[in-house]
Amino acid sequence: MGRLPPPDKLTELLADVAVMVRPQKGKGRVADYIPALSQVSPDRFGMTVITVGGEESSTGDANIPFSLQSITKVPALILALNTNGDEIWERVGKEPSGTPFNYLAQLEAEHGIPRNPFVNAGALTVTDYLIDRLGNPAGAVRDFLKIVSQTDDVWIDETVAESEFGHAYQNKAIANILALHGTINNDPDLVLKAYCRQCAIHMSVVALTRAFLPLASGGFSPILGESVVTTRIARRVNALMMMCGMYDAVGSFAYRVGLPAKSGVGGGIVAIAPGVASIGVWAPELDRSGNSLLGTLALEQFVQATDLSLL
Amino acid sequence: MGRLPPPDKLTELLADVAVMVRPQKGKGRVADYIPALSQVSPDRFGMTVITVGGEESSTGDANIPFSLQSITKVPALILALNTNGDEIWERVGKEPSGTPFNYLAQLEAEHGIPRNPFVNAGALTVTDYLIDRLGNPAGAVRDFLKIVSQTDDVWIDETVAESEFGHAYQNKAIANILALHGTINNDPDLVLKAYCRQCAIHMSVVALTRAFLPLASGGFSPILGESVVTTRIARRVNALMMMCGMYDAVGSFAYRVGLPAKSGVGGGIVAIAPGVASIGVWAPELDRSGNSLLGTLALEQFVQATDLSLL
Amino acid sequence: MGRLPPPDKLTELLADVAVMVRPQKGKGRVADYIPALSQVSPDRFGMTVITVGGEESSTGDANIPFSLQSITKVPALILALNTNGDEIWERVGKEPSGTPFNYLAQLEAEHGIPRNPFVNAGALTVTDYLIDRLGNPAGAVRDFLKIVSQTDDVWIDETVAESEFGHAYQNKAIANILALHGTINNDPDLVLKAYCRQCAIHMSVVALTRAFLPLASGGFSPILGESVVTTRIARRVNALMMMCGMYDAVGSFAYRVGLPAKSGVGGGIVAIAPGVASIGVWAPELDRSGNSLLGTLALEQFVQATDLSLL
Amino acid sequence: MGRLPPPDKLTELLADVAVMVRPQKGKGRVADYIPALSQVSPDRFGMTVITVGGEESSTGDANIPFSLQSITKVPALILALNTNGDEIWERVGKEPSGTPFNYLAQLEAEHGIPRNPFVNAGALTVTDYLIDRLGNPAGAVRDFLKIVSQTDDVWIDETVAESEFGHAYQNKAIANILALHGTINNDPDLVLKAYCRQCAIHMSVVALTRAFLPLASGGFSPILGESVVTTRIARRVNALMMMCGMYDAVGSFAYRVGLPAKSGVGGGIVAIAPGVASIGVWAPELDRSGNSLLGTLALEQFVQATDLSLL
Repeated sequence: MGRLPPPDKLTELLADVAVMVRPQKGKGRVADYIPALSQVSPDRFGMTVITVGGEESSTGDANIPFSLQSITKVPALILALNTNGDEIWERVGKEPSGTPFNYLAQLEAEHGIPRNPFVNAGALTVTDYLIDRLGNPAGAVRDFLKIVSQTDDVWIDETVAESEFGHAYQNKAIANILALHGTINNDPDLVLKAYCRQCAIHMSVVALTRAFLPLASGGFSPILGESVVTTRIARRVNALMMMCGMYDAVGSFAYRVGLPAKSGVGGGIVAIAPGVASIGVWAPELDRSGNSLLGTLALEQFVQATDLSLL
Repeated sequence: MGRLPPPDKLTELLADVAVMVRPQKGKGRVADYIPALSQVSPDRFGMTVITVGGEESSTGDANIPFSLQSITKVPALILALNTNGDEIWERVGKEPSGTPFNYLAQLEAEHGIPRNPFVNAGALTVTDYLIDRLGNPAGAVRDFLKIVSQTDDVWIDETVAESEFGHAYQNKAIANILALHGTINNDPDLVLKAYCRQCAIHMSVVALTRAFLPLASGGFSPILGESVVTTRIARRVNALMMMCGMYDAVGSFAYRVGLPAKSGVGGGIVAIAPGVASIGVWAPELDRSGNSLLGTLALEQFVQATDLSLL
Repeated sequence: MGRLPPPDKLTELLADVAVMVRPQKGKGRVADYIPALSQVSPDRFGMTVITVGGEESSTGDANIPFSLQSITKVPALILALNTNGDEIWERVGKEPSGTPFNYLAQLEAEHGIPRNPFVNAGALTVTDYLIDRLGNPAGAVRDFLKIVSQTDDVWIDETVAESEFGHAYQNKAIANILALHGTINNDPDLVLKAYCRQCAIHMSVVALTRAFLPLASGGFSPILGESVVTTRIARRVNALMMMCGMYDAVGSFAYRVGLPAKSGVGGGIVAIAPGVASIGVWAPELDRSGNSLLGTLALEQFVQATDLSLL
Repeated sequence: MGRLPPPDKLTELLADVAVMVRPQKGKGRVADYIPALSQVSPDRFGMTVITVGGEESSTGDANIPFSLQSITKVPALILALNTNGDEIWERVGKEPSGTPFNYLAQLEAEHGIPRNPFVNAGALTVTDYLIDRLGNPAGAVRDFLKIVSQTDDVWIDETVAESEFGHAYQNKAIANILALHGTINNDPDLVLKAYCRQCAIHMSVVALTRAFLPLASGGFSPILGESVVTTRIARRVNALMMMCGMYDAVGSFAYRVGLPAKSGVGGGIVAIAPGVASIGVWAPELDRSGNSLLGTLALEQFVQATDLSLL
């Protein structure tokens, strides 16, 4: 496995990566299923690397907040695991799900137990779990991200949340199947609303990359000077990101990038090089799997240049 | 095909049938997924036959109103077909669905087009159609049943409707999948509420059997002295009842009874002997397919005695 | 229900029907998945009606033998039921299957028990059952058809059988799933070969209609002067044809024709009007469901003219 | 990431691991679906580590040949990729499949394209590909393993192969679905026979670990002094093993061990620590997912002691 160059060279490398991926702009599509997301400029591109030593390097729009969407499934899971280590695993699995050609059938065939916490059914289950323990999951996730990133500029965009809730037919179906099987305890609409608010958390690439840094250093935050999760939880989360973090392109991502990562339809991806660094990227155009097109390319270029792939 | 005995013999026959099926009491289960249904006495048994000439014969609790539940899917479909003959078929199929081991998957694989109007997805689609055309589907179905049966004692039990809506996780999932595919136009919760109210219509076996009589006489109501549907619609509805009217026991029912029929989890069944009679029965205990256990047996006995099976 | 006209009028009616459906020629497709079937002229059309009194009326190519294909599932089932009434039902169901969007999944989800004896999985199971009891199912079915129709010109076309076996990938998959679950006892290839030979039986519409006549008269053959099946078996077979006899168009057929029937991809259909007549038709072009296009239309016209629909 | 101890300490560590896992003996089950596999003693345990520098350390039954079974899917894929880099990807995917609750349905829904080369459908496709290019895939895989491991004691157990072929109903169904969709070109039985022979290759843990060593060093074989695959192919194979190598326990294995690996029902597992070592283990008892119970435990212990997990 590779090693990172010194900070100034690293910033240069990130700028080079930004240039290299630019020609692919226009080949993806900004998420348009809700108006709030579709209004983001496809020209945005920001990237940040933070070493386990705490050194930060960035390029482009790394300080502009964007909608985290599915990336929030990771801090939500961390909060659930921090609350009570293994209880959540009675209600959600840890295995990849394959592509969702028959997602609802799979959920029914498996008695309402979602395959993992990063498919929507699993994330809704984590939200339901957090409602019972923390009351306001979206607020708790936002506060956790604020603290771990030491950034104030983290907030819930209520317009995005409401717009998402209004169009969430598929997720409403899923939430009701979960309720039918007793996987969730709270009212399906209540759980879904909380989930949509959590997804609507906004923060910048720099802040996001900081917030994920503990996963690269066995749970320890060099910024806070203390552990925010146990090493065991950090490894569990990394394993889940490796196997289930990139929708139905995890196999392709493992080959191209070879790092655990989580993406969101807002165009963000955050990847973990265990023992080395946390790497965040944001570029709104998505590929057909719903992952940031330029973001994936940028990670691929960066990993090639630094030999950071684990595989 | 057989012929019915004269009225006095027919009443005797119905009384005999009631005696014959009685020993099977206790072998089924009254529907208990909502409290309102579970409180009905399992000892109830009523049966009515009305010939196309308008002669009525009854036995037992034939004048006590009960919850029609899925039986209301038939008058709802009739209203939709009366409104605009064939438009509804753009959104719902006409074929049996097989057992529902993967009902939601089937619905998704078939692009949100329900297999037929008597599966819940199809009935919800009919309700949505009626909302756009008649405003208040449950009220319209109730009024239609009142008029055709010439009975005042037909009403919506709002407690049953609300209880049903509160527990309808599976149907909420289905309604949202229908909305996702654009099969329904109205808000899924609105459609589901209207559907639950329609299912909560109560009327007696006598009144129910009257209301279905036109299906036995090519659409003509001997009670009203006029046609309530065209012959073509009557045949369409009979064909759908024959193929899809008894949940996942249509094949077994075709062999045992051999008549088009529709059942509901309230314990009612109404069967049609085309050209001969309408036959209603009510007995709250259900078999494993959700059809009235004694009701099916009673129809089987009656058909054997009269040789009315079509097959 | 209607009544048939006298023999001379009936022959006239059949000739009229043949004229009425002719304009639809060219709108279907002759089965072409095996060369032997694709060579049949699309211009063929034959139709026969035989009353329960034994009077025969025909039109067109009613004396030219054609490939029965799936129609043979009916006599094969009759042989199994005649051998030992109800044993076969431990291995095969009696309910319609819905369209086969996920046929193999359904078979696996239901532990290798086919939905009914007329889907291929069910017919293979009947063949396996007959191998154990009669040795040579295809020969036994052929001999049964010969005897009941009192016709010598009934034979197995071995070229068709071999061609079919060579292309039967889907059926080989099904046979192996049946073996996996212990639904069939014999080698899957052996069962499939026997099944392909059974499907390759050839006979004329006249002979076929004769062979099915007992199903219209409670099991009694007016030709032989004796019962060939019990009334109970005849009713069971009619119920299965009503619910499962026309591939995934049983609902549409019930509305348009309203009689129990079985079709084959050779272009044949035979329908039963219980208590009245057996009706056979042959026209090679198939509709999208695999049923004879002109054959279905001819039955529809015939039933309209005679008011024979059960519904 | 960790570092390996010097050779003598490493041998000690392996002996310690063998002692630590021993108490779990008896909690799994030796594969018994074919007699030849069920006769292997459950007491066998062998483990080998070979560094990218070529240093070998072993413990226990590391020199006793056993049946590789699914592990052979890896060298077969390597041969296909070496033949013509990317052609095979037109017929097989690169993503995990989820658990196989509806494996055949998934295969049909995805038009006969297997999810990845390590599910049986994918491996059969690779075999078909190799038949067209190398004639005798099982022999070619055996010869490849011989050469790369520099071991003569590598052979095909024809009894195992025949026994497997005779019971392979599920795989026969799969092969026929592949033929139906044109994913395989050769006769399904021919492909399946070749596949069963390939699975029946026997070699020792030491030899197996040698054969996989190039995957730990970017394709270079320190034993042969030359590359046996390109770095790109080595990374592709590692990514596939990481995501799809341990049946439906890849997520759990990623957490517990954190290395790309491939298992077989013969009880073998071989794992890759990129840049560090190849690690093989053999213990016949399987867990519920079909992976070696003690083998997985041994890898978990070893990785904990050496901190070799990638995650």
